[in-house]
Amino acid sequence: MVDREELESVCKRRGFIWPSSEIYGGEAGFYDYGHLGARLKDNWEDIWKDFFLGIDDNYHMIYTPNILPYRALKASGHVDLFSDVLVHCMRCSESYRADHIVMELTGNNIEGMGAEEIEDILEKNDLRCPSCNGVFSETEDFNMMFSLNIGPTGEHKGFLRPETAQGTYMNFFREYRALRRQMPMGLATIGSAFRNEISPRQGVYRLREFLQAELQIFFVPGVHDTYYEELYDEDQKVRLLRDGEDEVKFVPVKELDELPIFYRYHLAKVYEFYHDHMELPHESIRLRELSDEEKAFYNLIHFDVEISMSSLGGWKEVGGIHYRGDYDLTKHQEESGTKMSIPIEGERVIPHVMELSFGVDRNIWALLDCGYHSKDRDWLSIPNKCAPYHVAVFPLVRKDGIIERSLDVFTELNSNFRAFWDKSGSVGKRYARMDEIGTPYCVTVDYDTLDDDTVTIRDIKSKEQIRVNISELVDVIDSLVFGEKVFNDHFSE
Amino acid sequence: MVDREELESVCKRRGFIWPSSEIYGGEAGFYDYGHLGARLKDNWEDIWKDFFLGIDDNYHMIYTPNILPYRALKASGHVDLFSDVLVHCMRCSESYRADHIVMELTGNNIEGMGAEEIEDILEKNDLRCPSCNGVFSETEDFNMMFSLNIGPTGEHKGFLRPETAQGTYMNFFREYRALRRQMPMGLATIGSAFRNEISPRQGVYRLREFLQAELQIFFVPGVHDTYYEELYDEDQKVRLLRDGEDEVKFVPVKELDELPIFYRYHLAKVYEFYHDHMELPHESIRLRELSDEEKAFYNLIHFDVEISMSSLGGWKEVGGIHYRGDYDLTKHQEESGTKMSIPIEGERVIPHVMELSFGVDRNIWALLDCGYHSKDRDWLSIPNKCAPYHVAVFPLVRKDGIIERSLDVFTELNSNFRAFWDKSGSVGKRYARMDEIGTPYCVTVDYDTLDDDTVTIRDIKSKEQIRVNISELVDVIDSLVFGEKVFNDHFSE
Repeated sequence: MVDREELESVCKRRGFIWPSSEIYGGEAGFYDYGHLGARLKDNWEDIWKDFFLGIDDNYHMIYTPNILPYRALKASGHVDLFSDVLVHCMRCSESYRADHIVMELTGNNIEGMGAEEIEDILEKNDLRCPSCNGVFSETEDFNMMFSLNIGPTGEHKGFLRPETAQGTYMNFFREYRALRRQMPMGLATIGSAFRNEISPRQGVYRLREFLQAELQIFFVPGVHDTYYEELYDEDQKVRLLRDGEDEVKFVPVKELDELPIFYRYHLAKVYEFYHDHMELPHESIRLRELSDEEKAFYNLIHFDVEISMSSLGGWKEVGGIHYRGDYDLTKHQEESGTKMSIPIEGERVIPHVMELSFGVDRNIWALLDCGYHSKDRDWLSIPNKCAPYHVAVFPLVRKDGIIERSLDVFTELNSNFRAFWDKSGSVGKRYARMDEIGTPYCVTVDYDTLDDDTVTIRDIKSKEQIRVNISELVDVIDSLVFGEKVFNDHFSE
Repeated sequence: MVDREELESVCKRRGFIWPSSEIYGGEAGFYDYGHLGARLKDNWEDIWKDFFLGIDDNYHMIYTPNILPYRALKASGHVDLFSDVLVHCMRCSESYRADHIVMELTGNNIEGMGAEEIEDILEKNDLRCPSCNGVFSETEDFNMMFSLNIGPTGEHKGFLRPETAQGTYMNFFREYRALRRQMPMGLATIGSAFRNEISPRQGVYRLREFLQAELQIFFVPGVHDTYYEELYDEDQKVRLLRDGEDEVKFVPVKELDELPIFYRYHLAKVYEFYHDHMELPHESIRLRELSDEEKAFYNLIHFDVEISMSSLGGWKEVGGIHYRGDYDLTKHQEESGTKMSIPIEGERVIPHVMELSFGVDRNIWALLDCGYHSKDRDWLSIPNKCAPYHVAVFPLVRKDGIIERSLDVFTELNSNFRAFWDKSGSVGKRYARMDEIGTPYCVTVDYDTLDDDTVTIRDIKSKEQIRVNISELVDVIDSLVFGEKVFNDHFSE
């Protein structure tokens, strides 16, 4: 249980993440990844790619630009529909997202409600500006895309993409041909997306520039069902909060009769990612079904991935599992005139899309939130594969050749793992520094090392130490970091 | 020797790279990376990180946003100085970058010349619009940054960053503290940068949105010189074109007396990257010293990395080695009021910056350009570490259990390498497809495999084949792909 202020302070001091351009006061909604945050982010992305692209040999990364031309986002519906309701205070001119201010002042969740209806609520309840008690202006729709001009004439309008997905939809047919017409086909991307939030709060949870990792899977329901049936593990359990129910249930996916198998399969895969690879406990993960009011009209089925984060006050969305039907390719076919259909059994069919969508920054924050312990000592519990450093090496003292010996050990470990060498301060202080950034193992070189070639390995979780010979050090660390080995196990071997 | 049209056609057809949002006609200066291009790009970035961050344990990645607030770019000088001279045709209204149109019409390189001087040249030579022979307008300065509004009020102006570097400068002091005041300190980043080019041409060479990989090294000359002296290999040779000279010389860096050792050291490192890791031949690489007119005023020493590319008509810049003195940190200290100096021997000193800057897209294009051969057959020669796939596996025929056997071989190889499995068409056609995308080795499973557990490995370069036992296949491929092993060598073992 960590509060936001405490976690933000550690993140800033140690080099994980902090508000961007802060020497100039910055702008709300932008964050920098420092040297540890960058490692955590890169590691998370590698694990994500390995896991989700590992599902099928025909799932691939692509990269597309942040700037999109007007027509692409007109076609996708973002030019007309991607807006929030804006209201500002007539006295102090502070801007508010209207649904958020109603939520703050009344406790009612009115997400998705239109501008006029919200205006009614503001008036009828005589709601006032929380900072100066001024009256609110009329509501207006505010498009959340950043717009810009491409080239010098002002005639070519563009936008920063509000999601990474459009690049994969627009490339569907070109990749379908380049990949020799195999289906299902998955196109994934990791990159920035931009939303000009009215007043972003909640740290890295709601950013104006953020990172998304998305996988769009193109398939034809009824035709590729057998493909998913073969992969499907019907006994895999997921924690679900169904629409209209109050309690989370932990159920095998085979019991979700009303959901198609391709959807159940992906629910299970996403759950597996969070539990087995992000190593989050079951009680911190749930897949929440959105109500018809909450979900976008083109999403036929929509569950959000939610993680319980104490720093953000409870369950927070970190990803979504969207069955979008043929909405996206149909829209792009209509607007561009480019064929998006494929031949299936003599007919032309527009493929459907399963979209697995993740907010990278939110996921990084979830790992830090769920992993940070500050009760007896400050330490971070994150998956070994995610940790900025796998192992640290300390010389016990700075004399008698111990420094040199520790550097030899470091050099060998560093060519196999992400290793860190530290000679400053007491060993206790050095352990504490590594605890705080989640380095799972610390190796200390001492006087005994000079005699018998052994070193200690200290475990972050139990604080226990074992002594191993340098000749087996790489193997032991390897099985601890990447293998199934449990610390202290090898004594009983 | 490949021409641009041919290479662009292969890139499009096979899935490397193509103009973005093309189903809507796109906008000039934006490209997508398809599934093979994405692998090539990711591999290039990994090799870049391994090499340049491998120089020192105190060199680190950080990531900062694409959107920067007005003040940051005002301080850096981009708001006032980052412009090109724009001119348009009074008849057909086509816009031109004025120095480019003078170059095109007169052959004279006037890069860096001011608006008024260029206007004189246009008038005196009576230069006309090349597409309609119309008269040119007056020249004007056109700022190349994309500007945008942050938030709903229009009062917070921002820009898309024109280079990735400012994020590292602004974070200097925070990272200096987080990294416990060790110097030299390197902050690297890979990410997008944006320049609103007047009329981008030359494919991926001049983009409006592009990728940069930059390493900024903070150090104090006179204090950290011994650090570089220890690392320095004085006999390492580089191919240099000095300012004012006509001929490239291949010289050991120790002969470059007038350059400081920290600069010579980095010249050699960059050269090593291109020759040893990108595996480009010496004759395709040169480090060109910029003249005083060409180089920015804050760069005390500036060599560009240039690669000879037939598709772009000769030597083209792919990177730069900039000694920027204390310009950047001094400017940010002045404008932000945030201290950027560090204590050195009792005094406060503002560190200097060595900047190693690379255009990722240009580097990818250089690999494709230099590696593509189309004389007798179409094949791509790129470093094994960069190749989208290390190895392909083919079943000779689709019957008698050969498919299943080849899938077993594929599965084993795929858990060790980037592997590809292909059963379609003749083996000759399958070789040809792998040749075109630079897959160095192809393994074929045939009837003999069923008898004696052997397969053939075919080498892309020589087209020769060897036969090895499946039990040693992973080791052989490993030493071929990552080791020093030369194809066919193991017969003589």
